[in-house]
Amino acid sequence: MVPRYSRPQMTAIWSPAERYRIWFEIEALAAEAMAAIGAIPAEAARVIREKGAPRAAAIGEAEVARIDEIERVTRHDVIAFLTFMAEGIGPEARFMHQGMTSSDVLDTCLAVQLTRAADLLLEDLDALLAALKARAMEHRRTPTIGRSHGIHAEPTTFGLKIAGHYAEFARGRERLRAARAEVATCAISGPVGTFASVDPRVEAFVAERLGLAVEPVSTQVIPRDRHAAFFCALAVIASGIERLATEVRHLQRSEVREAEEFFHPGQKGSSAMPHKRNPVLSENLTGLARLVRGYAVPALENVALWHERDISHSSVERVIAPDATIALDFALVRLTGMMEKLTVYPERMAANLESLGGVVHSQKVLLALTQAGMSREDAYAAVQRAAMATWQALGTPGGRSFAENLEADPAVSAVLSPAAIAAAMDPARDFAHVDTIFRRVFGEG
Amino acid sequence: MVPRYSRPQMTAIWSPAERYRIWFEIEALAAEAMAAIGAIPAEAARVIREKGAPRAAAIGEAEVARIDEIERVTRHDVIAFLTFMAEGIGPEARFMHQGMTSSDVLDTCLAVQLTRAADLLLEDLDALLAALKARAMEHRRTPTIGRSHGIHAEPTTFGLKIAGHYAEFARGRERLRAARAEVATCAISGPVGTFASVDPRVEAFVAERLGLAVEPVSTQVIPRDRHAAFFCALAVIASGIERLATEVRHLQRSEVREAEEFFHPGQKGSSAMPHKRNPVLSENLTGLARLVRGYAVPALENVALWHERDISHSSVERVIAPDATIALDFALVRLTGMMEKLTVYPERMAANLESLGGVVHSQKVLLALTQAGMSREDAYAAVQRAAMATWQALGTPGGRSFAENLEADPAVSAVLSPAAIAAAMDPARDFAHVDTIFRRVFGEG
Amino acid sequence: MVPRYSRPQMTAIWSPAERYRIWFEIEALAAEAMAAIGAIPAEAARVIREKGAPRAAAIGEAEVARIDEIERVTRHDVIAFLTFMAEGIGPEARFMHQGMTSSDVLDTCLAVQLTRAADLLLEDLDALLAALKARAMEHRRTPTIGRSHGIHAEPTTFGLKIAGHYAEFARGRERLRAARAEVATCAISGPVGTFASVDPRVEAFVAERLGLAVEPVSTQVIPRDRHAAFFCALAVIASGIERLATEVRHLQRSEVREAEEFFHPGQKGSSAMPHKRNPVLSENLTGLARLVRGYAVPALENVALWHERDISHSSVERVIAPDATIALDFALVRLTGMMEKLTVYPERMAANLESLGGVVHSQKVLLALTQAGMSREDAYAAVQRAAMATWQALGTPGGRSFAENLEADPAVSAVLSPAAIAAAMDPARDFAHVDTIFRRVFGEG
Amino acid sequence: MVPRYSRPQMTAIWSPAERYRIWFEIEALAAEAMAAIGAIPAEAARVIREKGAPRAAAIGEAEVARIDEIERVTRHDVIAFLTFMAEGIGPEARFMHQGMTSSDVLDTCLAVQLTRAADLLLEDLDALLAALKARAMEHRRTPTIGRSHGIHAEPTTFGLKIAGHYAEFARGRERLRAARAEVATCAISGPVGTFASVDPRVEAFVAERLGLAVEPVSTQVIPRDRHAAFFCALAVIASGIERLATEVRHLQRSEVREAEEFFHPGQKGSSAMPHKRNPVLSENLTGLARLVRGYAVPALENVALWHERDISHSSVERVIAPDATIALDFALVRLTGMMEKLTVYPERMAANLESLGGVVHSQKVLLALTQAGMSREDAYAAVQRAAMATWQALGTPGGRSFAENLEADPAVSAVLSPAAIAAAMDPARDFAHVDTIFRRVFGEG
Repeated sequence: MVPRYSRPQMTAIWSPAERYRIWFEIEALAAEAMAAIGAIPAEAARVIREKGAPRAAAIGEAEVARIDEIERVTRHDVIAFLTFMAEGIGPEARFMHQGMTSSDVLDTCLAVQLTRAADLLLEDLDALLAALKARAMEHRRTPTIGRSHGIHAEPTTFGLKIAGHYAEFARGRERLRAARAEVATCAISGPVGTFASVDPRVEAFVAERLGLAVEPVSTQVIPRDRHAAFFCALAVIASGIERLATEVRHLQRSEVREAEEFFHPGQKGSSAMPHKRNPVLSENLTGLARLVRGYAVPALENVALWHERDISHSSVERVIAPDATIALDFALVRLTGMMEKLTVYPERMAANLESLGGVVHSQKVLLALTQAGMSREDAYAAVQRAAMATWQALGTPGGRSFAENLEADPAVSAVLSPAAIAAAMDPARDFAHVDTIFRRVFGEG
Repeated sequence: MVPRYSRPQMTAIWSPAERYRIWFEIEALAAEAMAAIGAIPAEAARVIREKGAPRAAAIGEAEVARIDEIERVTRHDVIAFLTFMAEGIGPEARFMHQGMTSSDVLDTCLAVQLTRAADLLLEDLDALLAALKARAMEHRRTPTIGRSHGIHAEPTTFGLKIAGHYAEFARGRERLRAARAEVATCAISGPVGTFASVDPRVEAFVAERLGLAVEPVSTQVIPRDRHAAFFCALAVIASGIERLATEVRHLQRSEVREAEEFFHPGQKGSSAMPHKRNPVLSENLTGLARLVRGYAVPALENVALWHERDISHSSVERVIAPDATIALDFALVRLTGMMEKLTVYPERMAANLESLGGVVHSQKVLLALTQAGMSREDAYAAVQRAAMATWQALGTPGGRSFAENLEADPAVSAVLSPAAIAAAMDPARDFAHVDTIFRRVFGEG
Repeated sequence: MVPRYSRPQMTAIWSPAERYRIWFEIEALAAEAMAAIGAIPAEAARVIREKGAPRAAAIGEAEVARIDEIERVTRHDVIAFLTFMAEGIGPEARFMHQGMTSSDVLDTCLAVQLTRAADLLLEDLDALLAALKARAMEHRRTPTIGRSHGIHAEPTTFGLKIAGHYAEFARGRERLRAARAEVATCAISGPVGTFASVDPRVEAFVAERLGLAVEPVSTQVIPRDRHAAFFCALAVIASGIERLATEVRHLQRSEVREAEEFFHPGQKGSSAMPHKRNPVLSENLTGLARLVRGYAVPALENVALWHERDISHSSVERVIAPDATIALDFALVRLTGMMEKLTVYPERMAANLESLGGVVHSQKVLLALTQAGMSREDAYAAVQRAAMATWQALGTPGGRSFAENLEADPAVSAVLSPAAIAAAMDPARDFAHVDTIFRRVFGEG
Repeated sequence: MVPRYSRPQMTAIWSPAERYRIWFEIEALAAEAMAAIGAIPAEAARVIREKGAPRAAAIGEAEVARIDEIERVTRHDVIAFLTFMAEGIGPEARFMHQGMTSSDVLDTCLAVQLTRAADLLLEDLDALLAALKARAMEHRRTPTIGRSHGIHAEPTTFGLKIAGHYAEFARGRERLRAARAEVATCAISGPVGTFASVDPRVEAFVAERLGLAVEPVSTQVIPRDRHAAFFCALAVIASGIERLATEVRHLQRSEVREAEEFFHPGQKGSSAMPHKRNPVLSENLTGLARLVRGYAVPALENVALWHERDISHSSVERVIAPDATIALDFALVRLTGMMEKLTVYPERMAANLESLGGVVHSQKVLLALTQAGMSREDAYAAVQRAAMATWQALGTPGGRSFAENLEADPAVSAVLSPAAIAAAMDPARDFAHVDTIFRRVFGEG
């Protein structure tokens, strides 16, 4: 991922040096497990840990370059790493990796990296959920127009809008938690997963120490449906980011102006037009969501490896595992900051709510008419008539409000008095169940 | 979905008539709930159910056409349906749909359809798992070569291969179960989800009767991250189908011939070449997997609806909801039949296993050498030397086996006797842990 | 594709009966070519044509069912068809399909169908281009605000907006023309494309009669990169549809109201809210665009068939070839009608253009200041200052316009007189090059 | 893109420093154009070029960091760059970027980068085509079995296989050339593309100097359908890479062994199994193809920007423009090297060709029988009978060959003598048209 969309916390998980350190930890744990069951000398495991640990800890750019150099001869990354480690460990190094295959190290390492990445993303989601909850509570009763199809529908509150996004990210969190569990498995089972030359107890030991489950049946590799499900979970969360970002983009439109991304002192919206304040963060998030979604496609294609495995998934994962997690981490943190600092304009919300002359109360009048005995079809026609007349006259001098148009309609006035019309349009009814919904979402008493 | 890839059980769920019947059930239940809380007259609910039920039950092609005709005027499908029902129910029909919005009906109906579809898919998966378990048990100890990169690696058993696929589909089943729960929610909350004109108790009542949960916070629509997650779950299962189909395609290759799709009496493999018996079922499944994966892409794009909703998701779902579930249902059933009837050739498996002169035991010899004190690097070089020599002479008269080449290598013979080499290559070691793995997968004692 | 999104013109191309008729035409032409070079008796070709043509022409539902029935035994669709035809043709039928393989028929038939579908889509695009050109000309000088990031930027004209979409669809037309040429090839080259049992002159003859090119090198199948490119071309066009649909959705927003989809007499926007007039057509088009884009994904996966071919592409194409072309045809026709009938509100455009107090002219003032000697940085700061003050006071009583704020700023007034400020903000400058752009797009004099 | 899959030639195009250098070139050319038409003082353009050129040329890591620092305040990348340049150019810097908007620079720069990337990819394709042509010529008449469905079909030549891939990459080259032309446009048209403050002659001048066409109608941005088409073209080429890579993976299978990736001295195939030689390059290419395909998905979603533009495409392109071109460049170069060095085993091809007892000649016998007067159905049945018997007895002692089984079948022997059977199976017929196909593909005399 380009530095622009990367945070060091997530990038660190995917650095070559960190990867090698995890590899060593797996090899050292495996050696200790083998020593414990007498498969290799206890002394060998001790030396591997003692001499290997500082060597692994010290891996920096120079050491990565050295391992790359060895790989150019062996054309095999794990062998290159083992050779590099053996240089520091000495003859006992021959007891490393006994009966194991490269994928035992690679796939278990990927499990460690993905679970760490998932943990960071879960933290990100927690912070986002907290920010959304705070804004939802703050605007629990801030009236705003609800819109379907971009057209004013009925009143809602800004807090309810946010509550909906909160609930969506809470679901995303749950999905990510499940996806984390899916990829949190360890396989140390040898070339085709038969444990032909490595005891299953080694796998159990390493898994336990790394906080992973054992992979019930591996075939050299950990099966890739697990990873596909993981990247799909990220893609769904990313799509939720896009939904909230799209909402903010709409609210910041010049004609709407109900909310606005924080505009920093010194910030410039456009190189050409000094008047501009653009929702660039939410647009950026929209693009990042597309990227994260896009990574799910090759992840799904990675599932159908040949026989016990081929290595076609590897190049895909070397790219998308860091890219998808880094981009999503960045996007979640950016979204959290954006929502925390979002400037909200309740007075604009109120103004927009009133701007269509009251037609947004059409359903309540429709119901009052049917309750008063009109057929649904007739009532619909009368209300539509009054609403369209109101709409057409919007902004023209002397244009009648929705209530006025209703009162002037004989079919309506025959069954509803002006007072009854006004009562039907009482906005209080719109917010009668806000607390119910908040309780459902935030579980409060 | 084209009839070729459709089963009537699944197609029925998605028929227009069935959809209208579910719509009626939702409206009738809602009316009953409203009557129960005094929102509409109890008599109205009774008439709606009594006159509506037979009318809904009788919806066939002609009635669908009639509703379509009304829709051509109203340009609104739910209104067209309500008008059609009102024709049969009479004046009480005005109490139907009170305070509700179309999406209350549409989205709850989709939830009913998707959960039914999921139930059928879960049955399909159960049948597939049963078939795979039976074949895995049957071939638990049938030796076959494990292959990584398409190259012979080490021996495994055919049952172990199948067990791996079983475990993958068991995970897929678990994901589908979770995805079913995600989409099994009911929303009857009015135009922007505020319950402005419909009591939340109506939603609770309808949800309970339909076996759904209430949607905690809806915005006219049920949020589409739920559906995205659902279609992603299908896509991962489809990818697992492709993995098993790919295995069968490989095993049936002319050069491999270890297994073969059942070839029916009268079947013709090619219009040109009468000798052909092609793995057409598994190739077909590969294509169907691509289709189902492809449907996840627009499902993900459906999440970011505008404000409280736009209707862009609708055309997508009208197509992919039936298409993805019908194609996956068909694929699962086809795969089950294919695996039940798969012809397995253990003798070909044995022949292939032996065909490389024993080099497939190279790791065990490598380990024996390091255990005997050789450095990993020297041991690797010696074993690679012997293996490459064996490989090169394959099929040539007088070509030496891997064991013979090892014995002839002074570096090897210095530390391992011929008997020790033979012991290292003992195939029994390869299968020592088969039962462990089976226990993990199938949970047997 | 569901009937809702299907037009009979396109559906007809993909009917089973039409497919069989094309198959027959290919077989009959091939027989005539073989007769011409003496590979089969001339009499045979004559009988095949004479007896086969009416039989093929008469294929209806019953005949399709009969062929399906044969296929249930042979499990091979082309053989089933040949058997069905042989029943009517008699012994000369044995000279049909001589030296050919099924794919010769299937792939050439697909080429015929895809080119016909492309021709229909090209017609659709022509109609759309005509509609867009008419609206662009009509509104060539209708001022409207240009928006970047959803924020008012600078004035443009509604005609210019439409011209941009016209240019995009003109490019789409060009891409489709190229994509049509890609798939317009004929292969009659036998089981692995070697012409082992069929003379290349047969292929040349059939190709010429069907208006196709010969496939230079086939491998039983016509290579699928051609089809992938075709479906990608459709996906790009679909994305262009989404762009225009999104524009209309924005323009119809309650707060914008600059344009509106035609609202039919009798139409109902919502089952709940009689006041609603929603941009449902453009939302529908947005969803259809997602579908057509989604079909490109499996089309790309279809390219990498195994060896000389496998049949995994077939199930994909049986679905996406009709679905993608039918959905795109429907969408193009719907879009054309929608744009022809789009209600445009120039007065609302004018009102919105003025609604921000003149800040939309900020760039021109910025330039006037730098031309008057101010540094870019100072000018930017001064203009931003005035614009933000204007913005903040929007709608408040006594709020100053952008021009007033500029005049009140000593830094500005030091270099620009009120008259100079007014001159800088002259909207005439915004439209000075409209004709240039129209000439570029529509090529007029 | 990760360094592992990056070549410096391509990476250089996308470096931040190079991007800034191109930005400067665009600004300097625009200033020169403005000077030429009297829009800014000629002296200003001279100073901008003179002082700016060395400053831009010297941009290295430190300068990039400095620009980033300015951006942290302005939150606008182009303004940050202009500020940085102004520091070196002095007061004349205020004449830079006059009447332009950031996208004029950004999008024109992207056009320069994409066309350079395309040029490199075209070179890569030329090298690949040359390599494929050489191998095709070399193996023009090397017999090998053609396989459909992974099953032996009929003989072909290894050269013909390669010729098919050559033709596919030649088509890919043509598509890329067209895609390059699509993105090779320059837009300098101001904030909403109206040329309100910049003369169209400036655009024409800059375009001409940069080797680009003018964008006929832009809307602040160059329309993104152009870029979507570009990334789709890359995706189709990538899919072609996967097809060839898949072929090599199949040919290298242990049971097939007809070709093999070059195995370097010192190379190690597996950390566990010293005998392994795996087709890791072609598997790697398979994964890279998935990546490049995946990037087309967000590119297509980028098309539908809002109104005159939003910036959601930007984050996508910052990632996929380098990633897709770098990965494809790497993949093409890797594929070329792999194909040049591919070890081909004609003797294994011959052995596999013969391995099924001659059934691969079944079509030619079928034709001989129908030519001799048998009905197609009877002939098919007889040949299938003989083929299946041959197949079943494969490898068993005393198993009869296909010819022997045919001779033993009374239905066959009644119409074909043993000599006629042998004649029908003459392999020379399979290669009779190889030269025709080569002429079609390579255009030789």
